Amino acid sequence: MDRIGVVDTMFARVDMGSIAENRLAGMEGFGERFKAVRRTVPGIRDLAVACRQLIERENCEVVLACGMPGGDDLDRIRAHEASQGIMMAQVLAGKHVLEAFVHAQEEPDPVKFTELCRQRVGAHAVNAYWLLYAPEELRKRAGQGVRQGGPDAGPLPG
Amino acid sequence: MDRIGVVDTMFARVDMGSIAENRLAGMEGFGERFKAVRRTVPGIRDLAVACRQLIERENCEVVLACGMPGGDDLDRIRAHEASQGIMMAQVLAGKHVLEAFVHAQEEPDPVKFTELCRQRVGAHAVNAYWLLYAPEELRKRAGQGVRQGGPDAGPLPG
Amino acid sequence: MDRIGVVDTMFARVDMGSIAENRLAGMEGFGERFKAVRRTVPGIRDLAVACRQLIERENCEVVLACGMPGGDDLDRIRAHEASQGIMMAQVLAGKHVLEAFVHAQEEPDPVKFTELCRQRVGAHAVNAYWLLYAPEELRKRAGQGVRQGGPDAGPLPG
Amino acid sequence: MDRIGVVDTMFARVDMGSIAENRLAGMEGFGERFKAVRRTVPGIRDLAVACRQLIERENCEVVLACGMPGGDDLDRIRAHEASQGIMMAQVLAGKHVLEAFVHAQEEPDPVKFTELCRQRVGAHAVNAYWLLYAPEELRKRAGQGVRQGGPDAGPLPG
Amino acid sequence: MDRIGVVDTMFARVDMGSIAENRLAGMEGFGERFKAVRRTVPGIRDLAVACRQLIERENCEVVLACGMPGGDDLDRIRAHEASQGIMMAQVLAGKHVLEAFVHAQEEPDPVKFTELCRQRVGAHAVNAYWLLYAPEELRKRAGQGVRQGGPDAGPLPG
Repeated sequence: MDRIGVVDTMFARVDMGSIAENRLAGMEGFGERFKAVRRTVPGIRDLAVACRQLIERENCEVVLACGMPGGDDLDRIRAHEASQGIMMAQVLAGKHVLEAFVHAQEEPDPVKFTELCRQRVGAHAVNAYWLLYAPEELRKRAGQGVRQGGPDAGPLPG
Repeated sequence: MDRIGVVDTMFARVDMGSIAENRLAGMEGFGERFKAVRRTVPGIRDLAVACRQLIERENCEVVLACGMPGGDDLDRIRAHEASQGIMMAQVLAGKHVLEAFVHAQEEPDPVKFTELCRQRVGAHAVNAYWLLYAPEELRKRAGQGVRQGGPDAGPLPG
Repeated sequence: MDRIGVVDTMFARVDMGSIAENRLAGMEGFGERFKAVRRTVPGIRDLAVACRQLIERENCEVVLACGMPGGDDLDRIRAHEASQGIMMAQVLAGKHVLEAFVHAQEEPDPVKFTELCRQRVGAHAVNAYWLLYAPEELRKRAGQGVRQGGPDAGPLPG
Repeated sequence: MDRIGVVDTMFARVDMGSIAENRLAGMEGFGERFKAVRRTVPGIRDLAVACRQLIERENCEVVLACGMPGGDDLDRIRAHEASQGIMMAQVLAGKHVLEAFVHAQEEPDPVKFTELCRQRVGAHAVNAYWLLYAPEELRKRAGQGVRQGGPDAGPLPG
Repeated sequence: MDRIGVVDTMFARVDMGSIAENRLAGMEGFGERFKAVRRTVPGIRDLAVACRQLIERENCEVVLACGMPGGDDLDRIRAHEASQGIMMAQVLAGKHVLEAFVHAQEEPDPVKFTELCRQRVGAHAVNAYWLLYAPEELRKRAGQGVRQGGPDAGPLPG
């Protein structure tokens, strides 16, 4: 059975990993063709190693890395370092890690923020599935201005 | 037959990958000496791994990575991370990946923006072809102030 | 016996490594199931290599990297470089390095600052233990807004 | 015969690669002990892979990477990414790549700018030669405030 | 005999490498247990490869990388790239490279600046020795607020 990795953090204020797991559980082939492997780490800068371990030790074909960077100056640098680490991990492994980050400053209202997390993480769970089983779904949306966690921007006229 | 990789994103608002494919399809030797291998990924930070896979799994000799970074602060950092990933992928593989990015802030008018995409991606498709089959075309333009997606700056007097 | 690495610096103004060692010494299985291996380096940019050596030469399963970046502009860049090095070291090794940094600007009062160090380093020592022996403790705190060195932010409503 | 690599770009507005080649051609041993291997790539972010290829496929002992970064905000980030790529390429290969970049903002007058290119690229060509054949020339200038493309700053009193 | 590497630059305005060599020459075991291996490169961004070569070709156990970054905007970016390269070199090699940089903006008076170089480089030479032969000297200064090139900050109360 194929494996899709899901990592999230204790730092986040929404259980992003469970959103991802639930979304994957509703997809065709779940439990038969593929399953989800879940891990939780302390913070976003611990995600990269967890991704590498999920790929190499747990044989995951693709991984979702969920995080919620804080909003102050130090947090922004930490988010950049976390993203660079995730980039390094996936380039070295040659397998996709989809980074599903929701930044504290994106939405001040907590209820809307939680909804944003749900939409973005859910959409990236679909992307992970497509990368693995339905690349033609990605292909037919090329240049369509698709967004995760908000309305699509759509294609430009021209 | 040689292979030239083309990757683009769902996030972009112009089908940049098809521009590249069409341009390559009009070049000498297409379908005989070389063909294009196309992939679409969710966003720009997924390009690096796709490039690595196109080089290693699909044996592409050179890859075009097309993307359209958004215009806000987070987007700029994401574009930088995407570019660093593409750099890492190509340096590790030792094969060229031409980054054909058009930034949202480069042109406000949507029709002109689309035309800019067409010109830049098309010019980089030519560059990919030259890197592979006609390095002397690059050589004779050394220091000529060549631009992709706008008028050439030309050589300086002196 | 398993090994947990602890590295700190001469530059820091609090003996952060001893805080980590003391915390680890109070945990179940200390001296039987696992022990701590301690090193001190000059400054934060020397931590990455020390982490790599602790993992590869000393067989540490997980490492705590403790540091206290200064507050001026050059210090901030140095902290970023130190963190990038630690990221590179852990991604290449595929083992977790928990970065326990306390920045000079986080708290002006020296007594409160020292207490902040104690709390953060102590909490990361617990995290290191959990990563190794109790991943379910991390899992059940997923998305709970856990902080190291201050009150938890808690989960968002929604 | 040893090989010294020279790469430049179509983007630059001065034929920097030819400056380097001409300077090398005037040095002792040219054509007997060593020769130059020239390549041109589209832009500065294509230099890193070309350097790696010159080192690994063409057996160059040292490489000169010539480029002329533009002056706007995106150009500055691209220059930084290009330099990081060149750094990665040379560190991974363990061979020197001398980066001879002249930034658009360094000199507004086109004739003086071209002269600046000539001086800097020429001086780096000498440096490449010294790294390979005359390390004692570098050694005796240690701490002498040597500059490429302008008057030397000289040593400080003290 | 063990080897300690010393690299500096022609760009610097103080012969930093000789300061390091002289300091090492006064330490116990010099010429018997260990010796210094010296190199000079053009500028700070050439240090990383020289460090790698000193470690791999010259078998140095630890290296001192001395540099004097200039003070303008481009210089600051170059210093950051140089430091990232040194970080990459040491993490990949798994051996310590102590970066002894003195930035132009740290001290305007040339005589005091030269003295600052002397103190900082000398202190890092001692650190290199300690890393190799006396880790207990580093250990007993953990968290003591030790500085190189100025008065120690000392430990915080608490």
